[in-house]
Amino acid sequence: MSSEVATSAPNEAAAPRIRISEAGRYEGQRVQIQGWLYNLRKSGKIVFPIVRDGSGMIQCVAVKSNLPEEVFETLKGLTQESSLEVTGTLRAEPRAAGGYELDVSNVHVLQRVSEDHPYPITPKEHGVDFLMDHRHLWLRSRRQHAAIRVRHQVIKSIRDYLDSHGFTLVDTPIFTPAACEGTTTLFEVDYFEDEKVYLTQSGQLYNEANIMAFGKVYCFGPTFRAEKSKTRRHLTEFWMVEPEMAYADLEEVKRVAEEMVICLVGRVLEERKEDLKVLERDTAKLERVTAPFPRMSYDEAVKILQSKGSEIQWGSDFGNTDETLLTQDYDRPVMVDRYPSEIKAFYFAPDEHRPEVALGVDLIAPEGYGEIIGGGQRIHDLALLEKRLADHNLPREAFEWYLDLRRFGSVPHGGFGMGVERFVAWMCGLEHVRETIPYPRMLYRTRP
Amino acid sequence: MSSEVATSAPNEAAAPRIRISEAGRYEGQRVQIQGWLYNLRKSGKIVFPIVRDGSGMIQCVAVKSNLPEEVFETLKGLTQESSLEVTGTLRAEPRAAGGYELDVSNVHVLQRVSEDHPYPITPKEHGVDFLMDHRHLWLRSRRQHAAIRVRHQVIKSIRDYLDSHGFTLVDTPIFTPAACEGTTTLFEVDYFEDEKVYLTQSGQLYNEANIMAFGKVYCFGPTFRAEKSKTRRHLTEFWMVEPEMAYADLEEVKRVAEEMVICLVGRVLEERKEDLKVLERDTAKLERVTAPFPRMSYDEAVKILQSKGSEIQWGSDFGNTDETLLTQDYDRPVMVDRYPSEIKAFYFAPDEHRPEVALGVDLIAPEGYGEIIGGGQRIHDLALLEKRLADHNLPREAFEWYLDLRRFGSVPHGGFGMGVERFVAWMCGLEHVRETIPYPRMLYRTRP
Repeated sequence: MSSEVATSAPNEAAAPRIRISEAGRYEGQRVQIQGWLYNLRKSGKIVFPIVRDGSGMIQCVAVKSNLPEEVFETLKGLTQESSLEVTGTLRAEPRAAGGYELDVSNVHVLQRVSEDHPYPITPKEHGVDFLMDHRHLWLRSRRQHAAIRVRHQVIKSIRDYLDSHGFTLVDTPIFTPAACEGTTTLFEVDYFEDEKVYLTQSGQLYNEANIMAFGKVYCFGPTFRAEKSKTRRHLTEFWMVEPEMAYADLEEVKRVAEEMVICLVGRVLEERKEDLKVLERDTAKLERVTAPFPRMSYDEAVKILQSKGSEIQWGSDFGNTDETLLTQDYDRPVMVDRYPSEIKAFYFAPDEHRPEVALGVDLIAPEGYGEIIGGGQRIHDLALLEKRLADHNLPREAFEWYLDLRRFGSVPHGGFGMGVERFVAWMCGLEHVRETIPYPRMLYRTRP
Repeated sequence: MSSEVATSAPNEAAAPRIRISEAGRYEGQRVQIQGWLYNLRKSGKIVFPIVRDGSGMIQCVAVKSNLPEEVFETLKGLTQESSLEVTGTLRAEPRAAGGYELDVSNVHVLQRVSEDHPYPITPKEHGVDFLMDHRHLWLRSRRQHAAIRVRHQVIKSIRDYLDSHGFTLVDTPIFTPAACEGTTTLFEVDYFEDEKVYLTQSGQLYNEANIMAFGKVYCFGPTFRAEKSKTRRHLTEFWMVEPEMAYADLEEVKRVAEEMVICLVGRVLEERKEDLKVLERDTAKLERVTAPFPRMSYDEAVKILQSKGSEIQWGSDFGNTDETLLTQDYDRPVMVDRYPSEIKAFYFAPDEHRPEVALGVDLIAPEGYGEIIGGGQRIHDLALLEKRLADHNLPREAFEWYLDLRRFGSVPHGGFGMGVERFVAWMCGLEHVRETIPYPRMLYRTRP
């Protein structure tokens, strides 16, 4: 592509190319910014292009009398999302969003978006389906941009937390021969020569092997669930972090989950202040997320729900409405433990004193964001695990390797899984998880 | 599981539980270590259990006269990989591997591995198939443990490098509707209601959308290739990082690739010294990996290969033998650029002055480790990209969103992909990539 318009002012000396986020270091200097036209305000003989470059936005000030005619006219007629290089001098401007404005001395347009085929996302309201069909462009919009940056921060902070607390990253496989929790929600893949494999729903079983080698581990990757549900909390492809620890009991799992969540919320508040502002997130609510989190048993939770009018009976799992009801009196996540074993996966350790309940814990976020963490202590006794596999009609042969972990140095152990998208939705105050992942995959959505 | 043996010395005061890697901070103190029996040496009235806990190994010294009879006898008869908690006093011992030994005052065995069903991996030689069938246990072995820790370091250092150089993590989807480079090596997945999706081979096309929103991005996740090849360099599931940059040309791509590789090698050498020792890696060879990397064109590379006796002709891609031949005179990676467009993917930008060559670059590691990075500058002109899609018989409709990126603010841009496993194989000096990933997936390997 040759540039459709390439103009050059006479005194274009080499100005350093900077990113908008670095403006503070170049106050008073001549710099070049490479970006896209976000918006353009015109006021007679001055135009105010707002340029974004991915790191931030800056308002530029282009005065007709200071510029070659051709440059000014080019700028004045420029279309949304055209790509351009702007040279100018950075000036502190307390009223500006980023604190700086750029007095334009030259402009070079790389590609001018045609009026005949204008940028499809305009300031007017668009339907979600339209926006999702244009997800590859929608990510340029301010709110989407902010949400993905919060996502990056959350992922980075999870890894930082675990790396600095002695956990080893041990990636678990995506292709798995057996299912972790039933096979009805598994995606099947044709492997070679009529072999079938399934896309992972959890790395936990592998994590349990890995802790016996590394003590503390985590896996962090995409997981898949072929659920035919179309709710605001479900994606078919989502990212999950799963820490697991040897020589750990339910209390230790709760302690680490709480500590990690507090660390993440703190990092997001600290590092992504501007993005939270764009998202109009009420950060006061996040600031109240401090230790200790309220802890209650499933028994107590059921009683609370019943007292609030829920028709839940002991033995049932909580629905979204129950979760919202349960957390409405709290300003931080609620930890509910000791669920009925019946509604938990086969590998949960039973409570020693009350074998009908499992040493599992769910962490339910406030403000209606629902379960963000599920975990607990695993069975470490061989005989009990064998019995559970049989009770659940699971194919023993496929689990021989998993049983090995109880034959060769078994220890009490536990861990948890945290879905990235739900956590990010909570941080951003987004109602639907589809905006927390760059390219959401849902029941009726596999493009672009 | 109740402990098979649980013994307790009289003066068991609460000793702090530490990890072996923390021993230096507790010299002279009584501590507890929770781990597994790696090895046991006996010498009359003293036994020397070597205990591993995932963070390291420590030799313990248990003297018969200092211990209750029962504790000593338990220890003396303990089997490999039994789980145990050892209490004792840390003593500096310059001759010991980690610099410390533990004088045992008490032992608690959690699970004793049965003699009737002993730990299957013994110091004797095992075949690779046997070890891979026991991958869930093999990871406890010293070399495997070290390789996975190097892998963790490489992944962490990649993320640290990119995060600190202004790149935003934008995860690209695993489920994709179209292929990046042909469809013959794609894994097909049954989505809902007869829809088919494919597992990603590269996030690059999505990255190209993401840079227009964020300027500089990377994706980092598993990628899949249904290749029926069974070589030491191929996995069906492998992890890849792909940075991409707006307003970047081929030279900038080369600069960033070189800088990142140098950073990664440095971090591995600094942080994983002990693991490299376990792997018997000749670190002097890694220390020579400094800037600048030798740079040559494909044309020059072909001439060098021919002069060395290769039968390669201009227009062919390099095979493994060519790559090894090409790098044998160099002690650092070699950058080869400007390949024939014919052998590169449709999206590579042509050289302005020589349109038959593509602005692509491969980075070929020394010591026969082959191509670790492939990348280049992409086409940013709409008309040219449309022509290429047609020339390659690619379905235009599926690429409409990708064409949008050339309609709405197109800019010169480029990036590269780096496979984690090949890079880790190079760092570790491992001949086969299968040991660089916890649970390798290959043509005939999908378990455990």
